[in-house]
Amino acid sequence: MMQMLTLGIDIGGTNTAFGVVNEEGVILEQGEMPTKGYAQPEDYVTALYQSVQLTISQDYLSQVKGIGVGAPSANYYQGTIEHAPNMEWRGIIPIGRLIEEQFKLPVKVTNDANAAAMGEMMYGAARGMKDFIMVTLGTGVGSGFIANGNLIYGHDGFAGELGHVNAVRNGRACGCGRKGCLEAYTSATGVVKTAIEMLASDTQSLLHQHQSLDSKLIFDAALAGDTLAKDVFEYTGQILGQTLADAVAITSPEAIILFGGLAKAGELIFEPTRRAMEENLLNLYQGKIKLLASELKESDAAITGAAALIG
Amino acid sequence: MMQMLTLGIDIGGTNTAFGVVNEEGVILEQGEMPTKGYAQPEDYVTALYQSVQLTISQDYLSQVKGIGVGAPSANYYQGTIEHAPNMEWRGIIPIGRLIEEQFKLPVKVTNDANAAAMGEMMYGAARGMKDFIMVTLGTGVGSGFIANGNLIYGHDGFAGELGHVNAVRNGRACGCGRKGCLEAYTSATGVVKTAIEMLASDTQSLLHQHQSLDSKLIFDAALAGDTLAKDVFEYTGQILGQTLADAVAITSPEAIILFGGLAKAGELIFEPTRRAMEENLLNLYQGKIKLLASELKESDAAITGAAALIG
Repeated sequence: MMQMLTLGIDIGGTNTAFGVVNEEGVILEQGEMPTKGYAQPEDYVTALYQSVQLTISQDYLSQVKGIGVGAPSANYYQGTIEHAPNMEWRGIIPIGRLIEEQFKLPVKVTNDANAAAMGEMMYGAARGMKDFIMVTLGTGVGSGFIANGNLIYGHDGFAGELGHVNAVRNGRACGCGRKGCLEAYTSATGVVKTAIEMLASDTQSLLHQHQSLDSKLIFDAALAGDTLAKDVFEYTGQILGQTLADAVAITSPEAIILFGGLAKAGELIFEPTRRAMEENLLNLYQGKIKLLASELKESDAAITGAAALIG
Repeated sequence: MMQMLTLGIDIGGTNTAFGVVNEEGVILEQGEMPTKGYAQPEDYVTALYQSVQLTISQDYLSQVKGIGVGAPSANYYQGTIEHAPNMEWRGIIPIGRLIEEQFKLPVKVTNDANAAAMGEMMYGAARGMKDFIMVTLGTGVGSGFIANGNLIYGHDGFAGELGHVNAVRNGRACGCGRKGCLEAYTSATGVVKTAIEMLASDTQSLLHQHQSLDSKLIFDAALAGDTLAKDVFEYTGQILGQTLADAVAITSPEAIILFGGLAKAGELIFEPTRRAMEENLLNLYQGKIKLLASELKESDAAITGAAALIG
């Protein structure tokens, strides 16, 4: 039987995930490839096409009616990636047009976090919600704001860059060239930077045993009772929670959904984040905002969300 | 001829303005009364009813089909004012129900800044725009966020409290009980506080001549070339601009419209605000966001906007 299928593509700073999605939001087949390592976006799109052809069966591919793409710094209206701080390509990349030409299918592009928000609203923790904030904590920090049941794209299609809201005035350098952005503290690399800063004035932590750190090692050390590692999560939650309190004052959401690597740390990150958010909330909002973990698998939310862009 | 008229009421921290508005958004008759000085909200609503009866002709009043109310900390869904930091009444005030009972007419209530945003979109500087931010700089600082052509009310009806976004971490005490809110710096009283702080380490300023300061005196001194008074606007614009840059990252508006007393200072406040906003914007947004002055008379935007709540 013929189905209405969609190809969802999630372009992350490090990896690209893709999958064929049916009308119920089920991913029928999926694959992955690196995003980095292609000098030109054209080379990347050619490799993406080959990877899709090798991974997804021709039977499914022949039924795909359109392609939804989630990408960092994406312009929904133009179908472009513009000045993405976490990507190797600079300037304005016409990713929608390139994919359309290569795949010969209609393409829609949005912020990867916006796509994740769409997936969460249809199949995840935000089912039935009309006002929520999706925060993706990965290589970068992204967000999707849903108000009145719709994504806020903004005038230029660039809304939802919570990762580049100022969290610490004149703070840590961010990949975007400015200082003190939320992303510089609550991304995977931000958490490692916090640990390195704290280790400079510490001699006790288990983390001194490692030559190079990543957020998983810090998580494991915190679970093992390492005080410094727990302090890293406490500090990260403090920064995240106080920034979320400001986002709440703007959009008054029913819930904030945390997604991505850091969100998997569970109460280690949720407890300090919730506490800092509540401490910084205007009294109008106190005790009302649900702080929830994503209910979707890491790659699924972005793939199904991207797929949902195709009506 | 019978017209479809609406009564628009703008409840400010200090004064209440009201007017009868026709379908073209023209205010046919209007009046004003103090908001402060009433022990109970019931007393205030009784006085409001009397003031309306005395000011607006019976011919117009008989044609009024509904009442739109703009008020601080208003809950659109409940018709309440909840914990408004700038009002004498504490707790949750069922202002919609009280006005409905007194006037025997249907009532809708929103944030006074949301109402101003509606007025600006229909009759002012935001005509034709679908994504903009209205910022009201008065006794308090309010805001209305329009996305996809609609007001963002949020889950609880409380969205748009930009005045209570943190502008300075652990900064100046705010009327809401927290520290460092935008309102504590960019409201009329915030500007006076900045002047008083600066005067403590100054001997030259013209402002030393005055027993008590208000924002108009500071404006006049700046126009007269007073360095300290100009520094007050510079500092205020710095705080406002950097906070606006963060709001842009969330909603990506076409324009930000400044409204109220401080906005009347023209380039004295617009120039440093624009500069600080641009300096703090993510590169995606630089040079794209219009910073505009409201094109509506101070009281008109809120009255016609409130009136526009009645369909």
